[in-house]
Amino acid sequence: MQKTALEEEVLALVRPRPDEIRHIDEVAERILARIRADGRAEGMVVGSVARGTWIHGDRDLDIFLLFDPSLSREELEEQGLALARAIAGAEAESFREKYAEHPYINASIDGLDIDLVPCYRVESACSIKSAVDRTPFHTLYIRERIQPFIDDVLLLKQFAKAGGIYGSDQMTEGFAGYLCELLVLSHGGFRPLLVASSRWRPGVIIDIEGHRARDFPEPLVVVDPVDPKRNVSASVSLTRMCEFIELSRGYIEKPGREFFFPPPRPVLTVDGAAGILSRRGTYLYAIVLQTPPYIEDIVVPQLRKSLDAIRGLLDRHGFAVNRADCEMHEDNSMLLFELLVEELPAVTRHEGPPVWNQVNAAKFSSKYMQCSQKELFSGPFIEDGIAIVEKRRAYTRAADLLRSPEMLQVALGKHVKQAMERSYSVSRGIECYRDEFALFISCFLQKYSPMTWIRKHG
Amino acid sequence: MQKTALEEEVLALVRPRPDEIRHIDEVAERILARIRADGRAEGMVVGSVARGTWIHGDRDLDIFLLFDPSLSREELEEQGLALARAIAGAEAESFREKYAEHPYINASIDGLDIDLVPCYRVESACSIKSAVDRTPFHTLYIRERIQPFIDDVLLLKQFAKAGGIYGSDQMTEGFAGYLCELLVLSHGGFRPLLVASSRWRPGVIIDIEGHRARDFPEPLVVVDPVDPKRNVSASVSLTRMCEFIELSRGYIEKPGREFFFPPPRPVLTVDGAAGILSRRGTYLYAIVLQTPPYIEDIVVPQLRKSLDAIRGLLDRHGFAVNRADCEMHEDNSMLLFELLVEELPAVTRHEGPPVWNQVNAAKFSSKYMQCSQKELFSGPFIEDGIAIVEKRRAYTRAADLLRSPEMLQVALGKHVKQAMERSYSVSRGIECYRDEFALFISCFLQKYSPMTWIRKHG
Repeated sequence: MQKTALEEEVLALVRPRPDEIRHIDEVAERILARIRADGRAEGMVVGSVARGTWIHGDRDLDIFLLFDPSLSREELEEQGLALARAIAGAEAESFREKYAEHPYINASIDGLDIDLVPCYRVESACSIKSAVDRTPFHTLYIRERIQPFIDDVLLLKQFAKAGGIYGSDQMTEGFAGYLCELLVLSHGGFRPLLVASSRWRPGVIIDIEGHRARDFPEPLVVVDPVDPKRNVSASVSLTRMCEFIELSRGYIEKPGREFFFPPPRPVLTVDGAAGILSRRGTYLYAIVLQTPPYIEDIVVPQLRKSLDAIRGLLDRHGFAVNRADCEMHEDNSMLLFELLVEELPAVTRHEGPPVWNQVNAAKFSSKYMQCSQKELFSGPFIEDGIAIVEKRRAYTRAADLLRSPEMLQVALGKHVKQAMERSYSVSRGIECYRDEFALFISCFLQKYSPMTWIRKHG
Repeated sequence: MQKTALEEEVLALVRPRPDEIRHIDEVAERILARIRADGRAEGMVVGSVARGTWIHGDRDLDIFLLFDPSLSREELEEQGLALARAIAGAEAESFREKYAEHPYINASIDGLDIDLVPCYRVESACSIKSAVDRTPFHTLYIRERIQPFIDDVLLLKQFAKAGGIYGSDQMTEGFAGYLCELLVLSHGGFRPLLVASSRWRPGVIIDIEGHRARDFPEPLVVVDPVDPKRNVSASVSLTRMCEFIELSRGYIEKPGREFFFPPPRPVLTVDGAAGILSRRGTYLYAIVLQTPPYIEDIVVPQLRKSLDAIRGLLDRHGFAVNRADCEMHEDNSMLLFELLVEELPAVTRHEGPPVWNQVNAAKFSSKYMQCSQKELFSGPFIEDGIAIVEKRRAYTRAADLLRSPEMLQVALGKHVKQAMERSYSVSRGIECYRDEFALFISCFLQKYSPMTWIRKHG
């Protein structure tokens, strides 16, 4: 499909340069030669480099080592890692072992960030032994079809990156490269896709091969052409999906360079943040802990779980939470809560059993009849059949609750809990501001959807 | 059934004295003679005097004027009122017309408070033309059976009065005299009743004649022996029912004089109330209006409805209500609210449409894109598919909301609304204290169930 002048302008900026292509091809060929020389496995370049859908400046190269499926899992891991290590040892400035479902090697070679991933060379994507075995089939599927749509994929990837919705990692919960390729393929280009996605609703199903073999619970379903039981967009959250819907509408209505290159979100100074906070009139609390030593995709869901659990704790104790968010950095992670109420009266209502539950009603009544005047303000009395007392509130200040032992009793993620058991800090108001988290706090205090941001500042 | 020494002691105090009985019988006979002399209607003493179940000190005498059912409603009202007026004119120190379903005359005669109520003399309680026609049947039913249980009824009435649960009026929502009589009859005495009621649960059905002809939604069901479609305890609230359950258990466990003569609830001084309020740490707000010129049973439900509506308004605006109650006095009525929060931050969250609702999402977005920075703090952004903005809160102080025009737009009762449209006052903290409402505020600030009060001070 004919590109507009704007799109051509964007493409000129995002297409990889000839020297970049030459360099990446040359490094890839060197590694493939080493795999051939070894003979134990077959080498295959996968990912966007193999598909020609990478963007200028990308430094990622994925090379898979395909082993015979008759090998046991242990043999695969052992031989695969040995080969990958040998290659990295010969070629890399540095390398380290990483873990997904299998261990693999991440190496730095001639300025490129290269993953050397052992997998099984299976017959079809339906007979895979591990999730990574599927990747070569994705590459084969896309490579055969994508040629006429390379520019469309580059535009979509840049559009998604600009909107902050590119990437299937747990933090982003957005659109992976393979998903972008499938969306372009299934709609026949970048703009046809955006026309369609501007009308998406949760529950939309895109099934290029028409072979869907199950129901999927996720709001966006893109059935994997190489595996009818897999939703390629399973990691796309409803929020990211809707942000894409908004951006699609915005671009269809009035395309602009800012959809590909938006102005950066400004980082507030401490005074700027303090000013906004005081205008909002809310009470900001930050919990900072040492980031557990695990990969982002393990830690981030735990941070989110902890965020929800602590939010629930605050709410249960009467400290109404307006908004909460979390951020993981290499050293520290932050859980940020904006409260509408940080102090509450001494009195709190406590509901007992229904009066007609004689045994428990008697226990409740005798327990509170013995309570000192200092601890019990009113009651027991009856409301709608329930015995009620008004007693002293356990925490009248949110800060006390956040520093209390109750924090470690809520459903924190395992590693987050371990980190918080060692230590965590509680900050209040503008004290929450730390240079390390300045951008996170800035975006929290001035929260916009990507489309709002583009409209305001485009 | 044999009475205990305690019960005999109580009976000695609550049985009407011989001179009281003589006096009331003499006045009743004078009035009946006047009705006979007139000849248009048949006179009948009803209520507790007719049944011998009145309590020492009661001054109420109910005399019904039974007219021929062939009279039209207008004729009944005209002739009934004319006769009642003639009697009152000849006998009463003062009298006035009152309204239930029909008009009737309330007269003050020789120190007694006498109702002269015209009704139809129908064949049976099932063919009544108006609720008052049923009353003579109640009296006939009880009079034939109650003789062996008069003492038990007196004990139960005093027990219920002492617990503050005697009376089927809208304020009390408790136990009427006729209901007390039926409860004693159906269980064979005061103590057998309490043994049974200590095990009551909502949904209990007492049907002496075994002729219940419908389902009843109320928690306590006592089928009227003279009308299988009527629940005598329809006016008993779940709270009053449960308070009776608690008192029954308490008396069975450890009977005492305090169940019949509890210490009075103390009235706090203004300083005493201020001290308690400051210990509770809550924010008290009172709305005082002129009591609408209607009977309690019309005004009280309207006050309750208004209380709920304003409580809902406060809650919707983020001002958490711990407790609320209302009180009707002759001149003024008070709606009292105890808040946990009286001030809130400037920012408030406002949820828009789901993003996939394209038309409304566009309206929402363009509305808030035009909003000034002063009015809009953040957004639009997306959470779980919903467009959200954070905008300026309409009322950051509860007092402003309570003085705002929104107050008159919530579901107030009709006459309460008219009164509040004319004028109402809003007081805060200890300013809510007025001598007129001192007892009400005292009981509000130190709320106990009747049983708790007896246990604490018995």
